[in-house]
Order: sequence, then structure tokens, then C-alpha cells
Amino acid sequence: MIHQLTLSDVLAEHARSRPQVTAVVDGEVRLTYPELDARVTRLANALAARGVAAGERVLWLGQNSHAVLELLLASSRLGAVFCPANWRQSADELAFVLDDLAPKAVVWERSETAGPLSGDGWIAAGADYEEFLAGGSAEAVPESGDDAAPVLALYTAAFDGRPNAALLSSAALVAHSASLLVVRQMEPGFTFLNNGPLFHVGTMMFCLATLQIGGTNVFTPAFDAEEVCRLVDAEKVTQAFLFGQMIDAVVAANAGGKYDLSSLRFVSHSAEWDAMTTVDDSPWCRSKMGGYGQTEVGGMLTFLGLAPDAAGFAGRPSPLVQVRILAPDGSEVPPGETGEICARGKSLFSGYFNRPELNEARSRGGWHHTGDLGRREADGTITFVGPRLRMIKSGNENVYPAEVERALRTHPAVADAAVIGVPDERWHQAVKAVVVLKDGGTASAEEIAEHVKGALASYKKPRHVEFAASIPKKGFTPDYDALDAAYGGGNYPGS
Amino acid sequence: MIHQLTLSDVLAEHARSRPQVTAVVDGEVRLTYPELDARVTRLANALAARGVAAGERVLWLGQNSHAVLELLLASSRLGAVFCPANWRQSADELAFVLDDLAPKAVVWERSETAGPLSGDGWIAAGADYEEFLAGGSAEAVPESGDDAAPVLALYTAAFDGRPNAALLSSAALVAHSASLLVVRQMEPGFTFLNNGPLFHVGTMMFCLATLQIGGTNVFTPAFDAEEVCRLVDAEKVTQAFLFGQMIDAVVAANAGGKYDLSSLRFVSHSAEWDAMTTVDDSPWCRSKMGGYGQTEVGGMLTFLGLAPDAAGFAGRPSPLVQVRILAPDGSEVPPGETGEICARGKSLFSGYFNRPELNEARSRGGWHHTGDLGRREADGTITFVGPRLRMIKSGNENVYPAEVERALRTHPAVADAAVIGVPDERWHQAVKAVVVLKDGGTASAEEIAEHVKGALASYKKPRHVEFAASIPKKGFTPDYDALDAAYGGGNYPGS
Repeated sequence: MIHQLTLSDVLAEHARSRPQVTAVVDGEVRLTYPELDARVTRLANALAARGVAAGERVLWLGQNSHAVLELLLASSRLGAVFCPANWRQSADELAFVLDDLAPKAVVWERSETAGPLSGDGWIAAGADYEEFLAGGSAEAVPESGDDAAPVLALYTAAFDGRPNAALLSSAALVAHSASLLVVRQMEPGFTFLNNGPLFHVGTMMFCLATLQIGGTNVFTPAFDAEEVCRLVDAEKVTQAFLFGQMIDAVVAANAGGKYDLSSLRFVSHSAEWDAMTTVDDSPWCRSKMGGYGQTEVGGMLTFLGLAPDAAGFAGRPSPLVQVRILAPDGSEVPPGETGEICARGKSLFSGYFNRPELNEARSRGGWHHTGDLGRREADGTITFVGPRLRMIKSGNENVYPAEVERALRTHPAVADAAVIGVPDERWHQAVKAVVVLKDGGTASAEEIAEHVKGALASYKKPRHVEFAASIPKKGFTPDYDALDAAYGGGNYPGS
Repeated sequence: MIHQLTLSDVLAEHARSRPQVTAVVDGEVRLTYPELDARVTRLANALAARGVAAGERVLWLGQNSHAVLELLLASSRLGAVFCPANWRQSADELAFVLDDLAPKAVVWERSETAGPLSGDGWIAAGADYEEFLAGGSAEAVPESGDDAAPVLALYTAAFDGRPNAALLSSAALVAHSASLLVVRQMEPGFTFLNNGPLFHVGTMMFCLATLQIGGTNVFTPAFDAEEVCRLVDAEKVTQAFLFGQMIDAVVAANAGGKYDLSSLRFVSHSAEWDAMTTVDDSPWCRSKMGGYGQTEVGGMLTFLGLAPDAAGFAGRPSPLVQVRILAPDGSEVPPGETGEICARGKSLFSGYFNRPELNEARSRGGWHHTGDLGRREADGTITFVGPRLRMIKSGNENVYPAEVERALRTHPAVADAAVIGVPDERWHQAVKAVVVLKDGGTASAEEIAEHVKGALASYKKPRHVEFAASIPKKGFTPDYDALDAAYGGGNYPGS
């Protein structure tokens, strides 16, 4: 009990330590920490009256909203598990999630996609949700007490043809937040604009780190460049969930200088962007942002910001984890050799919901097996090589799509590229590149293949190059199943 | 297992992630992380051969040395408990510690004070220690695996006439380090000069945070201004354990500018100091350093750096703890009222070694009772009022010595002051001030009392003022038992 710190506890402390600080901004909604705490208590009591007990699941189906944070914190207060579901998924996919997770309560947003999906007893976001919350008692909820219990479920990529809900405990989320506070050098007053999808760990992890340090979370349904500008100006936002083309869109939306974006302390991107914002010197922003991560490690496992001038593309581990590069037999491989990236530590997940066999397989030997290949460089930094199951076997050689994709993207005419393995009678598999050319860019298949040969070992050169208008994506990574289906991939030895 | 991160694990990760980084500098000794890891393995195996198993205690008796860190890490590797004992204590006090802790191994430094204390089988620091370590096997130590197990024992102030060993687990120490990394904005490359005593949590906590981020720990036996200058220059030290008069001594030692101290990133102190060093902008250095802490919370519980412009003298809680101000019946007192500072969270200790009754009393209701009084201000920040057991009852009024002491120290002629309660027939107790005047300062007892009356409620004014050449201290705080004995204190209602 003395060592416990649940997400609910974090909120309870802020309600006392930061009575005047704004916790949440969402459209007309503005809540101080005491106000958020009071609403979360009512919501928890209302959910409890619906039968949500410790261990039960609560589902959100909708775009970003302060209700996502409220439902997560109310679930924490009850010892229950909250899942923000992907509202972009199809009705079939959602039906699978509902059957898999069997939530005791669903809060759902009326929208074009989700409209037809209403179920018995579902609570509609907006007025119905407010009425439901207001009906909850204001009395203190009895302490649930166990910060090692799962509190957040996020569905992740399918390993066996179906998605799996990664379970994260309060302890893991608090630890991961601490690592982000360290690397991003977040301070009280930090204001985060939640414009990326909250069903994805990439946005959720910054939302939670902002909560942890007692900052302000601003919610907007989804990315809209003009709205991002307006909110940054109005709320003095410190950081938003922005990358490459999104940043360009923000720069374009503010070309006339209508909005003051100087409160944004962010990574250097372009002369226009740097002039509009404040280039930040924290390790997270100073180097190339990011590192290596996945939902199962709470977000980030390694940080580029902890390894300036690193040889490895993924940087060094967070101060709260250990990483080992392991061979299939569980032994550690020496630096320079490729093996599976495995991890232990304070921010790791608690397994997948209702997947005992998969959990046993992925935690064998007391290490979480990420399913991704990597290696240690001579300087101790980590290189992410690619997903283990996508390794291509060509003759006796292993080819990792990510490596070939990086080489392809350095060709001046290439906008995007993905690599798959296609069955080959003689070599078992052959490397095939699917390439998207830039507007006005031209290159032949031979030129593309030769470009890769100039950068990598000759056996990694694509034997087949096919041009396409776009690469299908799952989140930020190529949808390899769709690519295999469309371009004839298969015969992977790791599958 | 997946969530485990012991201090030994932290070292094992750095040995892989930071193969070229210097972990330790101590005189002629320079060790990279892989070298430190290899020595710690040998030391752990040598200690195991001596019978040190999980839960057994290992004692260090000596000044600062890299051996302190090695023994702590080797103890962690074995699941054992390491105690760096206060080498300044008397033979009687040490005899109590030896009897209380019953260590399986003692490493001890020959010195004037500790010389006569040698015991059977004790290992002398220096050549004997090196020989002992070299005799240990280089084989990997079987994993101990439990980061919730105590690994560090630090003796703290007596509550009942004898000191108690506060037990800190790896999990608590790792969490506390994370909070320091956040507030001090420590980064890889951080170099800490261990010039304060490592048997005190104040130096130990920075040593461990430096380990956590993969920085460099420089050891020097004790504070020496010239040696501090030399080491800062030679090792490019980022931070040392320096306060007020120590900083003035460093400035004096470097008056001629012989040493380059610009690598020190520290708090602003004086024009000369600021010119020699780099004034740091982290929350820890930006505001007045510090906050409220004690060994039992891992070091710091609250930070001034998390509460710029705070009303409360102690700032706001670390992001990894909760604080409650509780009445004797366990209920929470409202803001503005004084109660006991109580805490929960990731950095808290695991109780005192071998003190079941005290542990039960101090953890009642699931909250660690610090034994200190405090209050929440209207802005949510915390004020430390003073030790609960030292509260003075004068008439129906409670008087807290710390408050009166702060008022006394604002008098221009006062160098130092301490306040006790003396028995009083009419009022139960009366406030008595023991005052040290500055060189050349003059003030009468009446002037001193009137000065306090001008700052505080009239009943807090000292009825008795006695002048002294110095205030007896225990570490950084007045030794109230000695003061009571010398100046007639007693009759405290909290005792």
C-alpha cells in the first residue's frame, strides 16, 4: 500500500497540489484538477452502479475527447480496465473487439462510421455521457489499491490473424511517463495538444506524461492544421503530436502569421517552422525525435535523445528498462549480430488480454520478446532491423525489409517504399520492392535496384520492383499483409 | 520478472549500452561500465563465498570511495543489503550498529577514528579489498530477481533513543533517481562529485541518479575546497554536493582562477561563484534548491523546483509520490491547518530493519508517517513546520520551533539559532531561543524577542533567549536532545 501509485492516485494528488491548474481543455470544457477529480469520482461511481468492478472492461469508441482521460482515470479508480477502441475500424473488426474484450460499459460517439454500431445500453458521448456522469455519487470510491493491475488495454497488430489487447498497469504507465519526463524534460506547465489518435500509444503516452507532471491536456477530435494553430495560440501549447507532413501543413496554415505558435517548444524542421516556434533543446527534441518502441513496452523502449551521435538508429534504452538482443535459444548474441529485441523493466505491459499461450511464448525466459529484430552496435546503441516475422530468406541469406526500405527511400525520385518477400523456386524467396515515386520523379526498376546495390550487400538488391500510387499503412508502418496479398508475397520462414 | 529492475540490472544494462563510458573515478581508479560490472560480479561472488546470501547485510565503514558503490551493487546482485555506516560515530555507537545489523561482511577503512575498531574477519579497504575482490569468480551471479527487496540500509535519527536502519529497495531507489532525473534534468554525460558523506541520503541519492542515467561518479574522501576545484576541472564535473559555506570556500580556493570550474552547472550563489561556473536553468537549480525530504522517502518527497513562486516552503511532491497532511486520527486536515506529513509512492522505504512495532506505527492506515508536521497552503504547496515530537505547547497554543527559528535567522545580527521548549508552571512550556550572534553582531535578548514578535504571533515570541557560541548539530539539523540537555528543555506533549 505504501508503495502504490495508480493513475487515480496521481489525479488525487494533483487535486490537492495543483488546485488552480487547468487539467483538461476540450472545446468549451475547461477543468481544473479538483474539478477533474470530482468528475472522475462521479463517473467511477456511475460505472460501478453499472456493474463495472475491478478487472471489468470499459470501452470508448470515438475520436479524441476529454472523456477518454476521464474514463481511463475512473477505470483506475475502480481497478477496472479501459480500452479506447480504434473508431476507424470496420464493423467486423469492432465486432471482434467487443466479443474479445466483453466490456461491461461502452461509451460511444455518434459519427458516420460508428453510427450504425450502437448496442444495448451503450452510452452516447455528449449529453447522455454528462447525464450518466452526473448521476454518479460524489462519495469517495473505496481504494482499489493495486498499481500492478492492468488499467489500459490498447489493441496492437495481429500476430496470428487477430489483434490483441496489450494490458498496461498503472505502475507501467507511471514509469513510462517518468522516462518521457526525463528525456523530453517536461515541467509543470507543460501543455500537450492531443491531436493524434488516443487509441494509439504514441499520443496516449504524452497525454499521460502531461498528467503525471501536472500539466494541461488539450483535446481536439483529430488533426486539422488550422485548428492546431488556433489551439496552440489560444492555450499556449508546448507540444502537439506532429510529424513531417503534418508540420508542413501547420506551416502552410499559418503562412500569414495569423497565429502565435511561439509557445510550441519542438524539434527543428524547416526554416519557416523554426521561425514560428521555439526550437527546444531537450534530448527528445535536440536529436532526431523518437527511438524504438511498441505498445507492449508502454510506448518507447529506446530513445535517440539518450544517444547523441549514436551508431544505432534507435538510440539507447530508457533509464527504466533493460534490453537484450537474444538468439532463438535465449542466449545473448554479441554486438554487431542480429537477434530479437527483448526487454524487461518498469514500463513493460502485463501481457495480452485473454491470450495465455501467446503471453507464455512472448515472455519466455523472463524477457519480453518484442517480435522485432535488432542488434547492438559497437557503441552499445541499438539498431532496429525489422519485424522478425517479415524476415526474408533468400538463399542462405537473411534480408530485413526495413534495411532495404531505408536504402530505397534515399533515392531522389522515391517518395515511399515497402519491401516484401515473394516465393522463389531457386532461392526460397526473392526481394520485391513496391515503390511510390515522387510527383514528377522518374526512375526505372533497374535504376532503383542498382541504387540499393550501391548501398547494401548485393543479395539485398530487389529482384522485382513494382511501382504503385501508395503504400497501404497500418498506423505509421506498411501494412505487410495487404502488400503480400496485393503483390504476391509469402513463404516467410519466421511465420 | 518482466517488470524487474534492480540496481544490479541498471549496471548490467549500462555495461552493454555504454561500453566506453567512465562509470567511476576515484584517485588512480578509473572504471568503464563494463569494468565496473565485471568487478561487481567478482565482488558478489567473493561475498557469496563468505556466506552473504539474499537478505544478509554487508557493512562499509569508511570515508567516500568507489568501494561504496561497488559493495552496494554487489549486494544488489546477491539480493543482500548494504549499509554504509557513519565513520564519524563513536565506538559505542558503532558497536550498537554492528549488534543491530549483524553484518555477514564488513569492509573497513583504517583511519584515526576507525582504526581501533577492527573486528574478526573484517576486510581492510585498499589492498586487502582488492585481493578479496580479485579472488571472486568471474562467472555470472544467478539472478536474485526481486527489486522490491531491500538493498540499502541507512541509519537515521533516533525516535526512541536508538538509531534505526531505514531499508530502501532497488525499486524505491530507481524511482527516486527518476524523480531527480526529472527535476534536475540530468542527461547522459552527467558527472557527479561525491564529496558529501555517502552514509547520508543527500549524497547517495545523487550518486544513484548519476548511475541511473549512465553518467560518471567521481569520489573524494570528504569535502576539501582545493581538491573539489581540482576534480571539477580535471573530470569536467557537472554537480558536486555543495551548499552555502562550502561554496564560499570553493570560491576562495579558486580566487586566482587556477581551475576551470565552468563545467559545473549549478545554482546561482554569488557574483564570484556565478562567474566561475555555469548557472543552470533546470527546475532544481532555477529556484531555491531542495524541498522536503528524509531517508525514509528515498531522499526528497517534495521539490521547490516543481513549484515556482510557491507559498509553501517545501514546494510540491515528486511526480512519483502522494502526500497527505493527516490528523492524529488519520483523517485529512484541510489546507492551512497543520498535521503530520504522510506519504505513499514509488520511492518510499520498506520500513526499518528489525523494528516491527515502529514499522507498524509509522505505516498505519497505509500511509508512511514522517514524524514531521506540515500544512498545505492555498496553492496546494507544502510547508514543513517542524518535527512532531518537538512541538511546544504554550498555554493552549502550538509553537513549532522551525517557524520561530526562521524568524530568528532573519535578524541581521543572528548567525544561527535553535528553539526548544522549557517547562513552565503556568503555560506548561515556554519558548526558549538559543542564539549565535554573527562576528561583530550585537543584540540584546529583548531585541531578539521583539524581532520575532514583529514577524509571528505574539505567543511564539521567545520568553527566554540565551546566547551561545554554536548550535550542536546532527547532520544539517540542530541536535535538539543535546540542546534540551544543555539549556533545560523538556515537557514536550508529543513525546
